[in-house]
Amino acid sequence: MHNDTDSATAWLRQAAPAARTASAALARMPEAARNDALRAAAAELLAQSAAIVAANARDLAAFDAGGGTAAFRDRLALTPARVGAMARGLETVAALPDPLGRVLADWTRPNGLHIRRVAVPIGVIGMIYESRPNVGADAAGLCLKAGSAVLLRGGSDSFHSAAAIHAALTAGLRAAGAPAAAVQVPPATDRAYVAAMLGAAGLIDLIIPRGGKGLVKRVLAEARVPVLAHAEGLCHTYVHAAADPGMARRIVANAKMRRTGICGATETLLIDAAVADALLPLLIADLSALGCDFRADRRARAIVPGLTAASDADFDTEWLDSILSVAVVDGVDAAIAHVRRHGSEHTDAIVTEDAAAAHRFIDGIDSAVAMWNASTQFCDGGEFGFGAEIGIATGRIHARGPVGLEQLTTFRYVVTGSGQVRP
Amino acid sequence: MHNDTDSATAWLRQAAPAARTASAALARMPEAARNDALRAAAAELLAQSAAIVAANARDLAAFDAGGGTAAFRDRLALTPARVGAMARGLETVAALPDPLGRVLADWTRPNGLHIRRVAVPIGVIGMIYESRPNVGADAAGLCLKAGSAVLLRGGSDSFHSAAAIHAALTAGLRAAGAPAAAVQVPPATDRAYVAAMLGAAGLIDLIIPRGGKGLVKRVLAEARVPVLAHAEGLCHTYVHAAADPGMARRIVANAKMRRTGICGATETLLIDAAVADALLPLLIADLSALGCDFRADRRARAIVPGLTAASDADFDTEWLDSILSVAVVDGVDAAIAHVRRHGSEHTDAIVTEDAAAAHRFIDGIDSAVAMWNASTQFCDGGEFGFGAEIGIATGRIHARGPVGLEQLTTFRYVVTGSGQVRP
Repeated sequence: MHNDTDSATAWLRQAAPAARTASAALARMPEAARNDALRAAAAELLAQSAAIVAANARDLAAFDAGGGTAAFRDRLALTPARVGAMARGLETVAALPDPLGRVLADWTRPNGLHIRRVAVPIGVIGMIYESRPNVGADAAGLCLKAGSAVLLRGGSDSFHSAAAIHAALTAGLRAAGAPAAAVQVPPATDRAYVAAMLGAAGLIDLIIPRGGKGLVKRVLAEARVPVLAHAEGLCHTYVHAAADPGMARRIVANAKMRRTGICGATETLLIDAAVADALLPLLIADLSALGCDFRADRRARAIVPGLTAASDADFDTEWLDSILSVAVVDGVDAAIAHVRRHGSEHTDAIVTEDAAAAHRFIDGIDSAVAMWNASTQFCDGGEFGFGAEIGIATGRIHARGPVGLEQLTTFRYVVTGSGQVRP
Repeated sequence: MHNDTDSATAWLRQAAPAARTASAALARMPEAARNDALRAAAAELLAQSAAIVAANARDLAAFDAGGGTAAFRDRLALTPARVGAMARGLETVAALPDPLGRVLADWTRPNGLHIRRVAVPIGVIGMIYESRPNVGADAAGLCLKAGSAVLLRGGSDSFHSAAAIHAALTAGLRAAGAPAAAVQVPPATDRAYVAAMLGAAGLIDLIIPRGGKGLVKRVLAEARVPVLAHAEGLCHTYVHAAADPGMARRIVANAKMRRTGICGATETLLIDAAVADALLPLLIADLSALGCDFRADRRARAIVPGLTAASDADFDTEWLDSILSVAVVDGVDAAIAHVRRHGSEHTDAIVTEDAAAAHRFIDGIDSAVAMWNASTQFCDGGEFGFGAEIGIATGRIHARGPVGLEQLTTFRYVVTGSGQVRP
């Protein structure tokens, strides 16, 4: 263990400064050169597709020897088609607008000083992720476009896949004359490399974990570096008394059942007592037909007999499954109180034709994304028009909600004078 | 010690949720109501001025019994005039534009979803500061205006002063119908209260330390909560070959000697070899006349004999005193290399009439504030036009440079649809 810690520390002390130098070089490269580097990396992914799939086969063989779920194996597996999708992802990022150099604010002081706030790269980003090997390539693409270098620490299950992807990406960077140190991977799978990254204050500027709750919790608990993390998505859809019934049925079915495993999936349905008698049975029937199960409060069960009773803890549970918590509430303020007590400030929606009620709900909650007459499943960088996302942030500092290229930048001030001195 | 930890934990578990509720109430208050609360707090500071000065006298008596520097005593001391300045500070903040509700971005997706990114309060801020009691009132004013509640933990030396200021502030809030729990102080001075605040992930959203390097280092090392901190200000002024000599003399004298103890004070002078023979003796003479001492490299000493030799470590030293490190460099790239190696990415300036050289320098460094033909001492929220600042941030995430009301907000998305579901 001590040797692993030493090795990890030694790696980081060499890797992080090299990454910083690479980031400085990226920041000075014109946008076209950064895009060329991304396209060259995409081309190398395609050219080395067979080698990447072969490396992945080694990871799969080790996985099969150890045993595990089919779902996990599917996340781990790479095919030529999936490598192609990674390459297309890099090309998509290359085509997005440049997030660097944007003038975020611009003003002149009475003394003539001209001040501009300008978007610049974050610097060195540490990405800690789990099984899906494509996360490494996707994250590298976004970080590079935003002028940051990235240290990629994938799951130990995908070690060979990650190494082969890294070899292709850096071959592309070199071919395009971009610094290969802008994307680095630890040389071994030991847990000590994660610990070294999490403790790297001053060397790494931001850690982004992508994975299950266990990973995110551990990162948040141990990190000595700012973290942009997705902790929990306990999303609500509130059907207000003035909801259009047809719209409510379409939105609730989609918000819960389109995909149940994503963080923007609705976990709890709140419905106003005034319309519950008429509407709740329809909503339940729609969802049941799609395979949904329920955990319902007393008032909901009085309207739709036979539903499973909800415990208090159920309303605090992010199901990520075909299960919906259901509660009947008495108007907007009760819905707000429920969301404030049980929600995770991720994404919460109201369905109503009453604008005053919508504004009251939106102003009363403090979610990263507040939706009016739309499915909570729209909480996604692609759906927001960001072109790509590195994840969704549930903290309150720096970025909230889908994290695209803009949120992967920071800023600085450029002050231009004509000899001003401070009185 | 165990009892103190228990007391601190018990306090925080009650104080932080009350602060969050207060923040939610502040966020819903119209701007005018928040401003009224600030003005009422200012009025109470004036009304309770005698009580505040009397409480401060208890702190001063304890300080005098313990012994300490005159400078520290001066920072601790309150007079009616200083209480008046605190009150005026709150009124100034009340008059500033509202940072909440600003629409930071606004777009419509092809499917008709309308997305707005809107400025909202951070929530619960923990302020940890040292001797100067006015920091508590100033921080409370900025946090309240920005819709956040604040837990104020001042130095143990100023415990009675802080309690008296807190009593006045909350009396003002109550008088204006604002939630008094928006400003809270721990009930005792024990260090365990700091530890509890630093570990309060999920309860406190942001910690802002204000004080010496020891305090900031400890906070950064221990915090489990995002931190907005000022770590170091090792600022450079680089006199380029094409500098206007008169402007260079005015700027260098001001950047170093206007006030030597502030973080934006220049600590190192870099001067191009091409003009050093002619200009360096004048700069040294100007600064010497103002009482400055020097740590000069070999090339500078060859031009101005008798200067103290600089060690390598001197160029890594934030003097905060009447001492200037001096080095002769060969052009812009050498100046950039020096700043990158020795600087702290705080504020760095170039003096030149050559725009190409200025842009090369500004693009080559990565400082939070890059200045061209102006004194580094302009790095200040007031000078930037922010009206007031809660401090200066040297990290790279969320905010950099002077931190005013805008940087004390975060954002959320408000998405308005007409029944869209996600395909």
